[in-house]
Amino acid sequence: MTITGQQLINGKWQAGTAGTYQAIAPATAQPLQPEMSYASKAQVAEAVQAAQLAAPLFAATSLTQRAAFLERCADEIMALGDELLERVSAETGYPKGRAEGERARTCNQLRLFAASIQSGEYLNIRIDTALPERQPLARPDIRFFNQPIGPVVVFGASNFPLAFSVAGGDTASALAAGCPVLVKGHNSHPGSCELVAQALHKAVQACELPAGVFSLLMGSGREIGSELVLAPAVKAVGFTGSFAGGMALFKLANNRPEPIPVFAEMGSVNPVILLPQALQQRAESIAKGFVASLTLGTGQFCVNPGVVIALNTPELAEFVQATAAALAEIPAGVMLNEPIAAAYVKGTTELASQPGVSLVASGKEVAETAGFCTQAQLFQVAASTFLANEHLQEEVFGHSSVLVVCENKAELLAVVTALKGQLTGTIQCTDAELAAEAELVTLLRQKVGRVVINNFPTGVEVCDAMMHGGPFPAATDARFTSVGTAAIARFVRPICFQNYPQALLPEPLQDANPWGLSRLVNGQRTAAALGDA
Amino acid sequence: MTITGQQLINGKWQAGTAGTYQAIAPATAQPLQPEMSYASKAQVAEAVQAAQLAAPLFAATSLTQRAAFLERCADEIMALGDELLERVSAETGYPKGRAEGERARTCNQLRLFAASIQSGEYLNIRIDTALPERQPLARPDIRFFNQPIGPVVVFGASNFPLAFSVAGGDTASALAAGCPVLVKGHNSHPGSCELVAQALHKAVQACELPAGVFSLLMGSGREIGSELVLAPAVKAVGFTGSFAGGMALFKLANNRPEPIPVFAEMGSVNPVILLPQALQQRAESIAKGFVASLTLGTGQFCVNPGVVIALNTPELAEFVQATAAALAEIPAGVMLNEPIAAAYVKGTTELASQPGVSLVASGKEVAETAGFCTQAQLFQVAASTFLANEHLQEEVFGHSSVLVVCENKAELLAVVTALKGQLTGTIQCTDAELAAEAELVTLLRQKVGRVVINNFPTGVEVCDAMMHGGPFPAATDARFTSVGTAAIARFVRPICFQNYPQALLPEPLQDANPWGLSRLVNGQRTAAALGDA
Repeated sequence: MTITGQQLINGKWQAGTAGTYQAIAPATAQPLQPEMSYASKAQVAEAVQAAQLAAPLFAATSLTQRAAFLERCADEIMALGDELLERVSAETGYPKGRAEGERARTCNQLRLFAASIQSGEYLNIRIDTALPERQPLARPDIRFFNQPIGPVVVFGASNFPLAFSVAGGDTASALAAGCPVLVKGHNSHPGSCELVAQALHKAVQACELPAGVFSLLMGSGREIGSELVLAPAVKAVGFTGSFAGGMALFKLANNRPEPIPVFAEMGSVNPVILLPQALQQRAESIAKGFVASLTLGTGQFCVNPGVVIALNTPELAEFVQATAAALAEIPAGVMLNEPIAAAYVKGTTELASQPGVSLVASGKEVAETAGFCTQAQLFQVAASTFLANEHLQEEVFGHSSVLVVCENKAELLAVVTALKGQLTGTIQCTDAELAAEAELVTLLRQKVGRVVINNFPTGVEVCDAMMHGGPFPAATDARFTSVGTAAIARFVRPICFQNYPQALLPEPLQDANPWGLSRLVNGQRTAAALGDA
Repeated sequence: MTITGQQLINGKWQAGTAGTYQAIAPATAQPLQPEMSYASKAQVAEAVQAAQLAAPLFAATSLTQRAAFLERCADEIMALGDELLERVSAETGYPKGRAEGERARTCNQLRLFAASIQSGEYLNIRIDTALPERQPLARPDIRFFNQPIGPVVVFGASNFPLAFSVAGGDTASALAAGCPVLVKGHNSHPGSCELVAQALHKAVQACELPAGVFSLLMGSGREIGSELVLAPAVKAVGFTGSFAGGMALFKLANNRPEPIPVFAEMGSVNPVILLPQALQQRAESIAKGFVASLTLGTGQFCVNPGVVIALNTPELAEFVQATAAALAEIPAGVMLNEPIAAAYVKGTTELASQPGVSLVASGKEVAETAGFCTQAQLFQVAASTFLANEHLQEEVFGHSSVLVVCENKAELLAVVTALKGQLTGTIQCTDAELAAEAELVTLLRQKVGRVVINNFPTGVEVCDAMMHGGPFPAATDARFTSVGTAAIARFVRPICFQNYPQALLPEPLQDANPWGLSRLVNGQRTAAALGDA
């Protein structure tokens, strides 16, 4: 394949008519070939119209057809071969191994969703059969399932050029649900976006789906992003990125004449709580695990551990010492783009200047380089200071963290109470400690989407049981995950059919259960056909 | 029991300190004894604080405990006996039979939810077990279920003094989910509110639950309603009522520092489409069914059929004639309160004055009466006029409807295309007609939450398969129902546990499956314990 700098609109590759630019390689700060283009508002409108036309046709596909399409998307992405890995690496500064790992994650995700929808779980099928003899009133036959919500706009994230981008989790879950997708690609990795869009375009064609099922548009969030969110035919938005970006979309969508849901995952500081027995037993191994989690991908993860909370015990000193030793070995890291590197330097400089905050450990210094390199840093602050300064809870995107030292258990609970909503909350502990800390666990469960015990928060498994989301401001809607098969639920809405002729019902709702799905029938869960005993 | 005019706040009955008023009997326009009181902002704050304290304790109750509580609520409501029925009847103008039917619906709803939660379906349990040998990375054990979202504010509706009020669908689903409830009772039926709150208070005490699990506050929506929605401890809002009221709450909730979901069911015109073969076969019986649905409860239902759409055929004339004959027998009806009656008169007067709209049938005239009586009315308009005047799509709450006459199939499809989001869409048809009208069905499925065939939209069954909601502006969030057991999903959010010690996991997630729930384990649905083959 060749990168052309074009957009995929209504199944056709078109040069964007709103200007050109080049991607910048973060490792060298040099522009990459070829020239890319920005879509115009008219091009956005054409893509939206195609998605609207495709919506009922795509909604009418069977689970098997959609699964085959998702599988084909994975196949076509793999078929892009090394060109994709090299472009991802060039555009993000990630090593090729990371690009390869992320490609595997992306394709496995598409295949998992293909397998998952065929179980029909996400359809949430419910059947209540007629009770013609019921007094005082007969009960009609009523059958319920989820149907696609309509065209979905997906905003790609900078930090996952594959797994949260053009064919990432949001796209995969919307397509799995049967919704056409309009991707606003991230301008940090436009070539990677285009290559993946080429793969999806091939899959759309091979599966003979309507052209409007998938479009790729590049441009600024403020311009074409707003245009997409405000288009009346668009019915939901998926976003992963900053708090400011997510909230701008959220407000825009809620102020439409017809408000639509925005699923914005906006990151968090992912507190890691170190309990004393655990530190007594394994301060050094916890320190090593922490440093690995903190510095993975130069810390550019939504689930990066940005706050560590611990009691002021002798073992904590041991943890700090071991962390400092491990961190000292970590080379300066290339960040995704110049604004992110600049924000990291600004954020850590501001942290260091706050009263009571001290730098206790850091990675290797930034060598002479043309790229967007930064240094890993660990700060320390007393809990009383942390509690008095809300600023210290703000996420600094990248490989920095703040250790909050508590003088006693009450202070530790006060710190957890003061936390805003989080994607994750981690506890390093012994089983006995966890059993004794019911109050801490209760508190943490009110704050987070995922509780992690004796692991670290990085490494978000793509599976049925993953909850990647959490109370505001981690996400705009705590009731949904953006990773794992439960993410499909964001892009469907229920409809029920009352007294509908059996033969004309959608197949998943028919008595015979031709697709063999698990259903809730008169309050009982069963995969049997109706009438079978 | 005695009606005292007090509020239930933190388990104590308190006189509201923000003024007094009396309920008005709509049948006579006379005030009812005793004097009622309005809650102050300080009293609201006390109730919210109690709910916040109760939240983690109530969340920790078992499904069996919560089910017993819901059952007890139903028992205590029944134990109120005739006093409740008489007060409901006096405050609403509904006949005692309607009050009795609604009480049955309310108590059956509580009992259905009690039964439903014990199946654990609403928990959406998902378990992915560890894969320590997986390459390149081991998979940790991850377990997911829904937990209560926190304190919920419920706004009672005027038109269902029991089933959508203090212990109605919103309250029942929030309590079933494990969320404390703060009810803002409707000022049209404050005595009924207080009696039901007395029953729920008894149930809270009998089940030894924290006092803050349930509070009742009376006052204006603008004052204490806003106060409740803006309280930081409140995590969701349930509302049934007008578009203006629902949108005011929606905007308020979205502009909080922490936005929260508002589930506002705001009504709709519930189009009824009459296809020609059905009219040929049974114009008269369709007319009778339509008039019964239109005039039930003086038309004061969210699902009242406010628009009828049909082709201009000879059989349509027969339908209009039969409708006129049936409607002529319908007495003027008492409406719930003076503003609703006034809005009905204003709305129908405005309809009648629109160019091209004619009155084709009406109920009996309003006799000399002191009460809030109005007359049923059916208007007629050409589809071309309807399409040109968006005003004609606005709901007039009560027993009026607009027949839209289409000259051909294309015009009929254009009318359906022009419809806003609806709770329901009804088709009167033969099976052959329905089979031939795939395009119409596809269109209608994009517009509604419930498709009704050869029934009428009134009569919203409380069951697992009910979807009572729909695309905006029928509701603020089309992904949820406010009737039936699926309504519980509004008040929970998922959380997952990674690498959590088995013995300390919440019971529904433990290997042994001690409550015997259906779970998704490694992609397979099963009620077996883990490890059992």
